[in-house]
Amino acid sequence: MIIVRSADELRSAITGPVSFVPTMGALHAGHASLIRLASADGSCVVVSDFVNPSQFGEGEDFESYPRDLDGDAAIAERAGAHILYAPDVGEIYPPDFSTTIDPGPLAQELCGAHRPGHFAGVATVVVRLFGLVGPRRAIFGRKDYQQLAILQRVTKDLALGIEIVGAPTIRDADGLALSSRNAYLSAAERSQAVVIPQALQHAAEAYAEGQRDGVVLAEIGRKALDGVTLEYLEVRSTDLGPYDPALPAVLLLAGHVGTTRLIDNIVLDPTAPERAATQISTKEYA
Amino acid sequence: MIIVRSADELRSAITGPVSFVPTMGALHAGHASLIRLASADGSCVVVSDFVNPSQFGEGEDFESYPRDLDGDAAIAERAGAHILYAPDVGEIYPPDFSTTIDPGPLAQELCGAHRPGHFAGVATVVVRLFGLVGPRRAIFGRKDYQQLAILQRVTKDLALGIEIVGAPTIRDADGLALSSRNAYLSAAERSQAVVIPQALQHAAEAYAEGQRDGVVLAEIGRKALDGVTLEYLEVRSTDLGPYDPALPAVLLLAGHVGTTRLIDNIVLDPTAPERAATQISTKEYA
Repeated sequence: MIIVRSADELRSAITGPVSFVPTMGALHAGHASLIRLASADGSCVVVSDFVNPSQFGEGEDFESYPRDLDGDAAIAERAGAHILYAPDVGEIYPPDFSTTIDPGPLAQELCGAHRPGHFAGVATVVVRLFGLVGPRRAIFGRKDYQQLAILQRVTKDLALGIEIVGAPTIRDADGLALSSRNAYLSAAERSQAVVIPQALQHAAEAYAEGQRDGVVLAEIGRKALDGVTLEYLEVRSTDLGPYDPALPAVLLLAGHVGTTRLIDNIVLDPTAPERAATQISTKEYA
Repeated sequence: MIIVRSADELRSAITGPVSFVPTMGALHAGHASLIRLASADGSCVVVSDFVNPSQFGEGEDFESYPRDLDGDAAIAERAGAHILYAPDVGEIYPPDFSTTIDPGPLAQELCGAHRPGHFAGVATVVVRLFGLVGPRRAIFGRKDYQQLAILQRVTKDLALGIEIVGAPTIRDADGLALSSRNAYLSAAERSQAVVIPQALQHAAEAYAEGQRDGVVLAEIGRKALDGVTLEYLEVRSTDLGPYDPALPAVLLLAGHVGTTRLIDNIVLDPTAPERAATQISTKEYA
């Protein structure tokens, strides 16, 4: 694996059709799973490592967001990346950069309602990275469910011709979804945070047993969220439209444990139950 | 030349690297010159013919904008186009389309100040068309000077890897820039409209004689605009930043003759004077 800093170096390093894993660094086993998926078909795997300022709001954690290029390089290489693209801010946002991509109404809902401008920042940087990297497909984690839906929308609307792949959420042994922000949690907060996947799991079990009332499902989750300051807990259709009891759905959550903002979700599908609490152990990366 | 209605047909019809001429139809000799330029290097020349609703404001002329596919096809074929892509609105804007590209501050100035949302509409449809057509370069007329600058900006910001080419303005024998909207002018208005290129020419002559005061240059133009209801007349740097007397500049104008909105511009370059009133005759297309 080679580490490149500029788009020119990147272009020289690419050896064939690209599968692309955009990241903000602070790589963990979740990212490693995306990279393994990217490399499974023999693609040239490019991982970007860029903490994008435009997707952080005022008072959010842009400055404190964990950065560890050496650690990232070790994880990316072990997972099968060929190129780690770690540009500086001036490479991504030259002084005269002025374009913003607004993904539309969905960017104002759920996380977007609590993080104004967040998804415009995500969409803009991802489309620019797509241009610089030139992938045939790009892999994103389903943990960021709304982000994945928005990027699928924007990629289709702009006819970018890139396949957007959603990959399963990777979880610690107790069920907590892996996130770079988990590093902010104190030991006590980390213990407390397990109620998030547990709450989703309770609701999913009720759904599996036949409960189809969206208000009841949300309430089952909400009652299990001791110690979490909830931003939202909503049942939606899997395309994030309004919940339809007759169709597969997704239960989405955002909240704070201490000062750390965490998100998670679980698909409610009678034909293919997902188990948030036990899906995948990550001991091999601990 | 073949006429296609869908992106699928378009993709099947493309025979090699594409030079692309996006148009709103109502083709005239100005468009023909873009198409000839596109075909000069042996590219597969794709012309799109789509009246884009999202770049028209309320009360503007979307409904009345001239449409003549048969006439367009004849002009495009004669000028060397290989494919005329004439999609319907549902092909460009499927029901769930939701993305908007905001080009940034320049889109709020000059024409953008008088046509809110116009350049976002232009940028969005052009980037989508770029995705559908997949060109290596695209040709736009310099008559729409601000549009050209904005599309260069957006193409660079999103790293689309498409060369944006600006082509000379084509003018009638009396100097009026060709525009599909000239068809709205009555005979008397058409006679009156000649003051627009004449006013630009007066200012350019003063510039050629050494006048470098931007206020004076604008005033020279303004005094020659009898019968034009002016929206703006401004001297800017050629990148549309503030005017710098030491650098090449451009004088830009928008105004109404009767109810018809017309725009024009002239580059003020001491090393390469442009002549608005006599540049190119179009009798062969009349």
